[in-house]
Amino acid sequence: MATNCIFCKIIKGEIPSFKLIETEKVYSFLDIGPLSKGHALIIPKYHAEKLHEVPDEYFGDVLPAAKKIALALGAENYNLLQNNGRIAHQEVDHVHFHVIPKPAASDTEGLVVGWPAQKPSMDELKKLHEELVTKL
Amino acid sequence: MATNCIFCKIIKGEIPSFKLIETEKVYSFLDIGPLSKGHALIIPKYHAEKLHEVPDEYFGDVLPAAKKIALALGAENYNLLQNNGRIAHQEVDHVHFHVIPKPAASDTEGLVVGWPAQKPSMDELKKLHEELVTKL
Repeated sequence: MATNCIFCKIIKGEIPSFKLIETEKVYSFLDIGPLSKGHALIIPKYHAEKLHEVPDEYFGDVLPAAKKIALALGAENYNLLQNNGRIAHQEVDHVHFHVIPKPAASDTEGLVVGWPAQKPSMDELKKLHEELVTKL
Repeated sequence: MATNCIFCKIIKGEIPSFKLIETEKVYSFLDIGPLSKGHALIIPKYHAEKLHEVPDEYFGDVLPAAKKIALALGAENYNLLQNNGRIAHQEVDHVHFHVIPKPAASDTEGLVVGWPAQKPSMDELKKLHEELVTKL
Protein backbone atom coordinates (compact mmCIF):
# COMPACT_ATOMS: atom_id res chain seq x y z
CA MET A 1 0.00 0.00 0.00
CA ALA A 2 1.15 3.56 -0.73
CA THR A 3 0.63 6.27 1.86
CA ASN A 4 -0.34 9.01 -0.62
CA CYS A 5 -2.65 6.91 -2.78
CA ILE A 6 -6.35 7.72 -2.55
CA PHE A 7 -7.32 4.15 -3.52
CA CYS A 8 -5.01 2.62 -0.91
CA LYS A 9 -6.72 4.90 1.63
CA ILE A 10 -10.13 3.70 0.46
CA ILE A 11 -9.04 0.05 0.85
CA LYS A 12 -7.81 0.81 4.39
CA GLY A 13 -11.06 2.62 5.23
CA GLU A 14 -9.29 5.94 5.78
CA ILE A 15 -11.48 7.48 3.09
CA PRO A 16 -15.14 6.41 2.95
CA SER A 17 -16.53 4.67 -0.13
CA PHE A 18 -19.73 3.07 -1.35
CA LYS A 19 -18.32 -0.45 -1.08
CA LEU A 20 -19.79 -3.15 -3.29
CA ILE A 21 -17.58 -6.24 -3.08
CA GLU A 22 -14.54 -6.96 -0.97
CA THR A 23 -12.40 -10.09 -1.08
CA GLU A 24 -8.93 -10.88 0.21
CA LYS A 25 -7.43 -9.52 -3.01
CA VAL A 26 -9.82 -6.91 -4.43
CA TYR A 27 -12.04 -4.05 -3.33
CA SER A 28 -14.86 -2.53 -5.36
CA PHE A 29 -16.98 0.55 -4.93
CA LEU A 30 -19.11 3.10 -6.76
CA ASP A 31 -17.30 5.76 -8.78
CA ILE A 32 -18.47 9.09 -7.36
CA GLY A 33 -17.89 10.82 -10.70
CA PRO A 34 -19.69 8.17 -12.76
CA LEU A 35 -20.10 8.14 -16.52
CA SER A 36 -23.51 6.56 -15.96
CA LYS A 37 -25.65 5.29 -13.11
CA GLY A 38 -23.94 2.27 -11.56
CA HIS A 39 -20.40 3.01 -12.78
CA ALA A 40 -18.22 0.96 -10.43
CA LEU A 41 -14.51 0.45 -9.82
CA ILE A 42 -12.63 -2.71 -8.91
CA ILE A 43 -9.12 -2.36 -7.54
CA PRO A 44 -6.51 -4.90 -6.48
CA LYS A 45 -5.39 -4.67 -2.87
CA TYR A 46 -1.88 -4.08 -4.12
CA HIS A 47 -0.45 -0.72 -5.01
CA ALA A 48 0.74 -0.70 -8.61
CA GLU A 49 0.31 2.02 -11.17
CA LYS A 50 -0.14 -0.18 -14.22
CA LEU A 51 -1.61 -3.57 -15.06
CA HIS A 52 1.72 -5.14 -15.96
CA GLU A 53 3.07 -4.36 -12.47
CA VAL A 54 0.38 -6.30 -10.58
CA PRO A 55 1.30 -9.80 -9.30
CA ASP A 56 -0.99 -12.39 -10.91
CA GLU A 57 -2.36 -13.50 -7.53
CA TYR A 58 -4.19 -10.15 -7.26
CA PHE A 59 -5.99 -10.67 -10.57
CA GLY A 60 -8.04 -13.74 -9.65
CA ASP A 61 -11.05 -11.97 -8.15
CA VAL A 62 -11.22 -9.02 -10.57
CA LEU A 63 -13.31 -10.47 -13.39
CA PRO A 64 -15.62 -12.51 -11.13
CA ALA A 65 -16.29 -9.23 -9.25
CA ALA A 66 -16.93 -7.39 -12.54
CA LYS A 67 -19.37 -10.13 -13.52
CA LYS A 68 -21.22 -9.95 -10.18
CA ILE A 69 -21.50 -6.18 -10.49
CA ALA A 70 -22.75 -6.42 -14.09
CA LEU A 71 -25.40 -8.91 -12.97
CA ALA A 72 -26.44 -6.70 -10.04
CA LEU A 73 -26.68 -3.69 -12.35
CA GLY A 74 -28.72 -5.68 -14.83
CA ALA A 75 -27.14 -3.68 -17.65
CA GLU A 76 -27.68 -4.96 -21.19
CA ASN A 77 -24.82 -2.87 -22.50
CA TYR A 78 -21.67 -2.04 -20.56
CA ASN A 79 -17.93 -1.59 -20.87
CA LEU A 80 -15.10 -2.95 -18.78
CA LEU A 81 -12.15 -0.58 -19.04
CA GLN A 82 -8.74 -0.37 -17.42
CA ASN A 83 -6.50 2.54 -18.42
CA ASN A 84 -2.72 2.64 -18.12
CA GLY A 85 -0.89 5.96 -18.31
CA ARG A 86 -2.04 9.55 -18.55
CA ILE A 87 -2.49 9.64 -22.33
CA ALA A 88 -4.54 6.43 -22.08
CA HIS A 89 -6.85 8.33 -19.71
CA GLN A 90 -5.63 6.98 -16.36
CA GLU A 91 -6.33 9.53 -13.63
CA VAL A 92 -5.53 7.71 -10.38
CA ASP A 93 -2.21 5.90 -10.25
CA HIS A 94 -3.48 2.70 -8.66
CA VAL A 95 -4.68 0.05 -11.14
CA HIS A 96 -8.47 0.18 -11.42
CA PHE A 97 -11.06 -1.53 -13.59
CA HIS A 98 -14.16 0.44 -14.55
CA VAL A 99 -17.52 -1.29 -15.04
CA ILE A 100 -19.54 1.29 -16.95
CA PRO A 101 -23.19 0.75 -17.95
CA LYS A 102 -24.10 2.17 -21.37
CA PRO A 103 -27.81 2.98 -21.01
CA ALA A 104 -28.23 4.43 -24.50
CA ALA A 105 -26.31 5.13 -27.70
CA SER A 106 -25.36 8.66 -26.71
CA ASP A 107 -22.26 10.78 -26.22
CA THR A 108 -23.58 12.25 -22.98
CA GLU A 109 -23.73 9.15 -20.77
CA GLY A 110 -21.56 6.06 -20.40
CA LEU A 111 -18.18 5.49 -22.00
CA VAL A 112 -17.74 7.25 -25.33
CA VAL A 113 -15.60 5.15 -27.62
CA GLY A 114 -13.75 6.31 -30.73
CA TRP A 115 -12.35 3.59 -32.97
CA PRO A 116 -9.70 4.81 -35.44
CA ALA A 117 -8.98 1.40 -37.02
CA GLN A 118 -5.67 1.20 -38.86
CA LYS A 119 -5.10 -0.84 -42.00
CA PRO A 120 -1.81 -2.68 -41.64
CA SER A 121 -0.79 -5.09 -44.42
CA MET A 122 -0.63 -8.84 -43.72
CA ASP A 123 3.16 -8.53 -44.08
CA GLU A 124 3.30 -5.87 -41.39
CA LEU A 125 1.16 -7.98 -39.06
CA LYS A 126 3.28 -11.06 -39.77
CA LYS A 127 6.49 -9.19 -38.95
CA LEU A 128 5.03 -7.76 -35.72
CA HIS A 129 3.74 -11.20 -34.77
CA GLU A 130 7.15 -12.82 -35.24
CA GLU A 131 8.73 -10.12 -33.10
CA LEU A 132 6.15 -10.36 -30.29
CA VAL A 133 6.24 -14.14 -30.10
CA THR A 134 9.93 -14.00 -29.18
CA LYS A 135 9.07 -11.74 -26.24
CA LEU A 136 6.19 -13.75 -24.80
CA MET B 1 -18.27 -23.45 -28.94
CA ALA B 2 -20.68 -21.97 -31.47
CA THR B 3 -20.59 -23.09 -35.10
CA ASN B 4 -21.17 -19.67 -36.62
CA CYS B 5 -18.83 -17.71 -34.36
CA ILE B 6 -15.68 -16.35 -35.99
CA PHE B 7 -13.80 -16.41 -32.67
CA CYS B 8 -14.79 -20.02 -31.95
CA LYS B 9 -13.44 -20.85 -35.43
CA ILE B 10 -10.18 -19.07 -34.62
CA ILE B 11 -9.84 -21.05 -31.37
CA LYS B 12 -10.43 -24.29 -33.29
CA GLY B 13 -7.91 -23.28 -35.96
CA GLU B 14 -10.55 -23.23 -38.70
CA ILE B 15 -9.68 -19.59 -39.37
CA PRO B 16 -6.01 -18.58 -39.20
CA SER B 17 -4.83 -16.02 -36.65
CA PHE B 18 -1.61 -14.43 -35.43
CA LYS B 19 -1.63 -16.36 -32.17
CA LEU B 20 0.14 -14.84 -29.18
CA ILE B 21 -0.76 -16.86 -26.09
CA GLU B 22 -2.83 -20.00 -25.69
CA THR B 23 -3.70 -21.73 -22.43
CA GLU B 24 -6.32 -24.32 -21.53
CA LYS B 25 -8.86 -21.53 -20.98
CA VAL B 26 -7.91 -18.58 -23.18
CA TYR B 27 -6.62 -17.79 -26.65
CA SER B 28 -5.02 -14.53 -27.72
CA PHE B 29 -4.06 -13.11 -31.08
CA LEU B 30 -3.41 -9.89 -32.98
CA ASP B 31 -6.41 -7.84 -34.02
CA ILE B 32 -6.18 -7.51 -37.81
CA GLY B 33 -8.07 -4.21 -37.73
CA PRO B 34 -5.95 -2.70 -34.93
CA LEU B 35 -6.42 0.72 -33.37
CA SER B 36 -2.62 0.87 -32.98
CA LYS B 37 0.40 -1.34 -33.60
CA GLY B 38 0.23 -4.33 -31.25
CA HIS B 39 -3.53 -4.22 -30.58
CA ALA B 40 -4.28 -7.72 -29.32
CA LEU B 41 -7.34 -9.72 -28.31
CA ILE B 42 -7.79 -12.25 -25.52
CA ILE B 43 -10.80 -14.55 -25.65
CA PRO B 44 -12.07 -17.23 -23.30
CA LYS B 45 -12.37 -20.69 -24.84
CA TYR B 46 -16.06 -20.61 -24.01
CA HIS B 47 -18.71 -19.15 -26.24
CA ALA B 48 -20.60 -16.41 -24.44
CA GLU B 49 -21.71 -13.10 -25.80
CA LYS B 50 -21.22 -11.04 -22.66
CA LEU B 51 -18.91 -10.98 -19.66
CA HIS B 52 -21.61 -11.88 -17.15
CA GLU B 53 -22.31 -15.12 -19.05
CA VAL B 54 -18.78 -16.53 -18.77
CA PRO B 55 -18.14 -19.16 -16.06
CA ASP B 56 -15.51 -17.85 -13.61
CA GLU B 57 -13.12 -20.71 -14.42
CA TYR B 58 -12.55 -19.17 -17.87
CA PHE B 59 -11.46 -15.83 -16.39
CA GLY B 60 -8.34 -17.01 -14.56
CA ASP B 61 -5.86 -16.67 -17.43
CA VAL B 62 -7.27 -13.48 -18.99
CA LEU B 63 -5.50 -10.79 -16.96
CA PRO B 64 -2.19 -12.69 -16.68
CA ALA B 65 -2.28 -12.95 -20.51
CA ALA B 66 -3.05 -9.23 -20.83
CA LYS B 67 -0.12 -8.48 -18.55
CA LYS B 68 2.26 -10.70 -20.58
CA ILE B 69 1.14 -9.02 -23.80
CA ALA B 70 1.56 -5.55 -22.31
CA LEU B 71 5.08 -6.47 -21.20
CA ALA B 72 5.93 -7.90 -24.64
CA LEU B 73 4.60 -4.76 -26.33
CA GLY B 74 6.59 -2.58 -23.97
CA ALA B 75 3.83 0.03 -24.14
CA GLU B 76 3.98 2.86 -21.60
CA ASN B 77 0.35 3.74 -22.22
CA TYR B 78 -2.38 1.26 -23.09
CA ASN B 79 -6.01 0.40 -22.50
CA LEU B 80 -7.66 -2.87 -21.59
CA LEU B 81 -11.22 -2.84 -22.89
CA GLN B 82 -14.05 -5.34 -23.02
CA ASN B 83 -17.31 -4.24 -24.62
CA ASN B 84 -20.73 -5.77 -23.99
CA GLY B 85 -23.56 -5.08 -26.40
CA ARG B 86 -23.80 -3.24 -29.69
CA ILE B 87 -24.27 0.25 -28.24
CA ALA B 88 -21.26 -0.39 -25.99
CA HIS B 89 -19.27 -0.99 -29.19
CA GLN B 90 -19.15 -4.81 -29.19
CA GLU B 91 -18.79 -6.06 -32.75
CA VAL B 92 -18.16 -9.80 -32.41
CA ASP B 93 -20.56 -11.69 -30.14
CA HIS B 94 -17.93 -13.75 -28.30
CA VAL B 95 -16.49 -12.09 -25.19
CA HIS B 96 -13.13 -10.49 -26.03
CA PHE B 97 -10.67 -8.29 -24.18
CA HIS B 98 -8.73 -5.71 -26.17
CA VAL B 99 -5.19 -4.73 -25.20
CA ILE B 100 -4.65 -1.47 -27.08
CA PRO B 101 -1.37 0.48 -26.99
CA LYS B 102 -1.77 4.26 -26.95
CA PRO B 103 1.39 5.50 -28.64
CA ALA B 104 0.50 9.19 -28.49
CA ALA B 105 -2.21 11.56 -27.27
CA SER B 106 -4.07 11.62 -30.57
CA ASP B 107 -7.51 10.84 -31.95
CA THR B 108 -6.09 8.97 -34.93
CA GLU B 109 -4.40 6.03 -33.21
CA GLY B 110 -5.22 3.88 -30.19
CA LEU B 111 -8.47 3.92 -28.24
CA VAL B 112 -10.23 7.29 -28.24
CA VAL B 113 -11.96 7.82 -24.92
CA GLY B 114 -14.73 10.30 -24.18
CA TRP B 115 -15.58 10.83 -20.52
CA PRO B 116 -18.97 12.50 -19.92
CA ALA B 117 -18.80 12.44 -16.11
CA GLN B 118 -22.16 12.84 -14.38
CA LYS B 119 -22.69 14.69 -11.13
CA PRO B 120 -24.99 12.60 -8.94
CA SER B 121 -25.69 13.85 -5.42
CA MET B 122 -24.41 11.89 -2.40
CA ASP B 123 -28.04 11.00 -1.68
CA GLU B 124 -28.50 9.52 -5.14
CA LEU B 125 -25.29 7.49 -4.78
CA LYS B 126 -26.32 6.32 -1.30
CA LYS B 127 -29.70 5.15 -2.58
CA LEU B 128 -28.15 3.33 -5.55
CA HIS B 129 -25.57 1.75 -3.26
CA GLU B 130 -28.24 0.43 -0.87
CA GLU B 131 -30.11 -1.04 -3.81
CA LEU B 132 -27.06 -2.70 -5.39
CA VAL B 133 -25.79 -4.18 -2.15
CA THR B 134 -29.00 -6.21 -1.85
CA LYS B 135 -28.33 -7.71 -5.29
CA LEU B 136 -24.68 -8.66 -4.78
